[in-house]
Amino acid sequence: MNKAFEQHNKEAGAQPLGRPLITPLRFEDGRLMLLDQTLLPAEEKYIQISTKEEMWEAIYKLRVRGAPAIGVAAAYGLYVESARYAGESVEEFMQQAVETALYLESSRPTAVNLSWALRRMIKKLTETASSVRLSVQQAKELLLEEAQAIHREDVAACEAMGEYGLSLLKPGMGILTHCNAGTIATSAYGTCLAPIHLGQQRGYGFHVFADETRPLLQGARLTAWELCKAGVDVTLICDNMAASVMKNGWINACVVGCDRMAANGDGANKIGTMGVAILARKFGIPFYMYVPTSTIDLATATGEEIRIEQRDGEEIYRLWYEKPMAPAGIKTYNPAFDVTPAEYITAVITEKGIVYPPYDINLKKIKEE
Amino acid sequence: MNKAFEQHNKEAGAQPLGRPLITPLRFEDGRLMLLDQTLLPAEEKYIQISTKEEMWEAIYKLRVRGAPAIGVAAAYGLYVESARYAGESVEEFMQQAVETALYLESSRPTAVNLSWALRRMIKKLTETASSVRLSVQQAKELLLEEAQAIHREDVAACEAMGEYGLSLLKPGMGILTHCNAGTIATSAYGTCLAPIHLGQQRGYGFHVFADETRPLLQGARLTAWELCKAGVDVTLICDNMAASVMKNGWINACVVGCDRMAANGDGANKIGTMGVAILARKFGIPFYMYVPTSTIDLATATGEEIRIEQRDGEEIYRLWYEKPMAPAGIKTYNPAFDVTPAEYITAVITEKGIVYPPYDINLKKIKEE
Repeated sequence: MNKAFEQHNKEAGAQPLGRPLITPLRFEDGRLMLLDQTLLPAEEKYIQISTKEEMWEAIYKLRVRGAPAIGVAAAYGLYVESARYAGESVEEFMQQAVETALYLESSRPTAVNLSWALRRMIKKLTETASSVRLSVQQAKELLLEEAQAIHREDVAACEAMGEYGLSLLKPGMGILTHCNAGTIATSAYGTCLAPIHLGQQRGYGFHVFADETRPLLQGARLTAWELCKAGVDVTLICDNMAASVMKNGWINACVVGCDRMAANGDGANKIGTMGVAILARKFGIPFYMYVPTSTIDLATATGEEIRIEQRDGEEIYRLWYEKPMAPAGIKTYNPAFDVTPAEYITAVITEKGIVYPPYDINLKKIKEE
Repeated sequence: MNKAFEQHNKEAGAQPLGRPLITPLRFEDGRLMLLDQTLLPAEEKYIQISTKEEMWEAIYKLRVRGAPAIGVAAAYGLYVESARYAGESVEEFMQQAVETALYLESSRPTAVNLSWALRRMIKKLTETASSVRLSVQQAKELLLEEAQAIHREDVAACEAMGEYGLSLLKPGMGILTHCNAGTIATSAYGTCLAPIHLGQQRGYGFHVFADETRPLLQGARLTAWELCKAGVDVTLICDNMAASVMKNGWINACVVGCDRMAANGDGANKIGTMGVAILARKFGIPFYMYVPTSTIDLATATGEEIRIEQRDGEEIYRLWYEKPMAPAGIKTYNPAFDVTPAEYITAVITEKGIVYPPYDINLKKIKEE
């Protein structure tokens, strides 16, 4: 598949996108700086993360969000906390690293990239330590190198998903997206927004419709902001308007990200994604889910097994508002994610290529490639 | 059908609900007082409407909303403006009344009750004037009586829809509703919320899920508030969570209001209603639309002909918020309504009884009954 991808690039005379102007995190001079996404679009402010507690809070509070970005941030977070270790014992260092990883993993349960990145960091450490005698300093360097490798690979994955995704789209298309799987949800141009940025650079003239994505308005605050900045023609709608724009004939494709894909192709993503998929099927519109292979979780058989994070109801009835917008003490149900059944997903776009059904066979194949 | 209804009531030993504690308008001592619904749930404030301009503004700004309530309010508004006429010429009075009616009709295009009520008022006036010589004073009294008749009939319609609607529901059911077709959208307990209030009084123990209904949050501000007040078990969700609660198996029926139903059964209602209907069909859940016969518009053949009101995008990106929640200058699409195709509507509940498909035949029948 990589060969087909290179061929496709060559034929297209493709220019990859440059580095994005804004990134969800920076690691400079040993300091981890995180873009506080809760302040967007009003303010672009980076905060320093120096401890595991600060990292946990930043993930839980969605200062950093988006499955790939959470994975990269947590990897650096594990390094930053570990680098504070002042002792001489590698065994103690490793034990503390494992504890830090488990602690950070508890910040959000649904996105698999979080545990994937942390486990990869720990695995690198333990595997190396089992063959070489490491000093504490070497162990720290090993963690930093692994975090940087995860970061680099995520940039490459976004670029690849952009190219693969663009091959499924045509100039002038109307495209609906939900939530934000864009620049600041990843290390580069996003997963499902990467082909839109790429198309913009190549004059595709897409018309993008961004669901505002209640309760936290990632579509309004982040996707609309990001695409506006890039000069893309973007129209903001409320989530409940998606069916209308589809019925109007304005949508030719839906593109969304993914927080965890089960082995059978069921994909957990931001709450509301399943509804978009059902509507897209009804109106005969292809529904593409962008899933880096690190987000495919073969250990989870189906979507039924994916744990859905339940968040504070205040996000629905108070957050972002001047005054309460619902009666005091109102009962709420506030799941952060839902699971789109595999049957509604037209294709899965990964950094290694496009996967079509049957997903139970083809996801395993691409994951192991 | 009225006989069947009386029979049903008798068997059920039915107690009608008393007058609701709060109403969208009051007409007392010649003064029209309107509940300003934009202030809810924080403040319950009535404002006086003394001119046609004030009435127009109140309808456009949604201080009074809900198809039946708009009809009743506009009828009183026409009277209040006409009562200001200080001349002696019945012809001039009638000409001004027609102009006022046309002016008020322009405030919102989708809800048919607005034009229905205003035309009924004018028709009463012209028909009477063609057979009797009226004084200006008598003409004024005629308008007041007709407005009061429309008001009384709406109260009776709500009570009847409550009884009919309840006959389709079972104790303990989970019920999803969108927007607010409740107490303050009508003259009494609402259209689609009437059976919920009635069920509450009779110990049905419903579990209601209220879509918050973006952009203006009528579900959060009005439905949740109204049902909380009545002691109903109500859970507030964001619009994009409807598919999830359905998939969870928590919803046994969907109930919604209607702003205009075409002759073929296509029903315009608050934006997002069509999406709920498509999802309900997917999950095998009955979808009931509550439609007083005054809302059935036989002059409109299908939903394609219904004009959908487009509202200011600021409602999406700014209203209710402390600060802008989307980038400045973002393009928006803000339809106030959508049309649910007849095929998705399980049954239409009117004040004269329950209508099942084929709607093109059966709506005409009940309308003419």
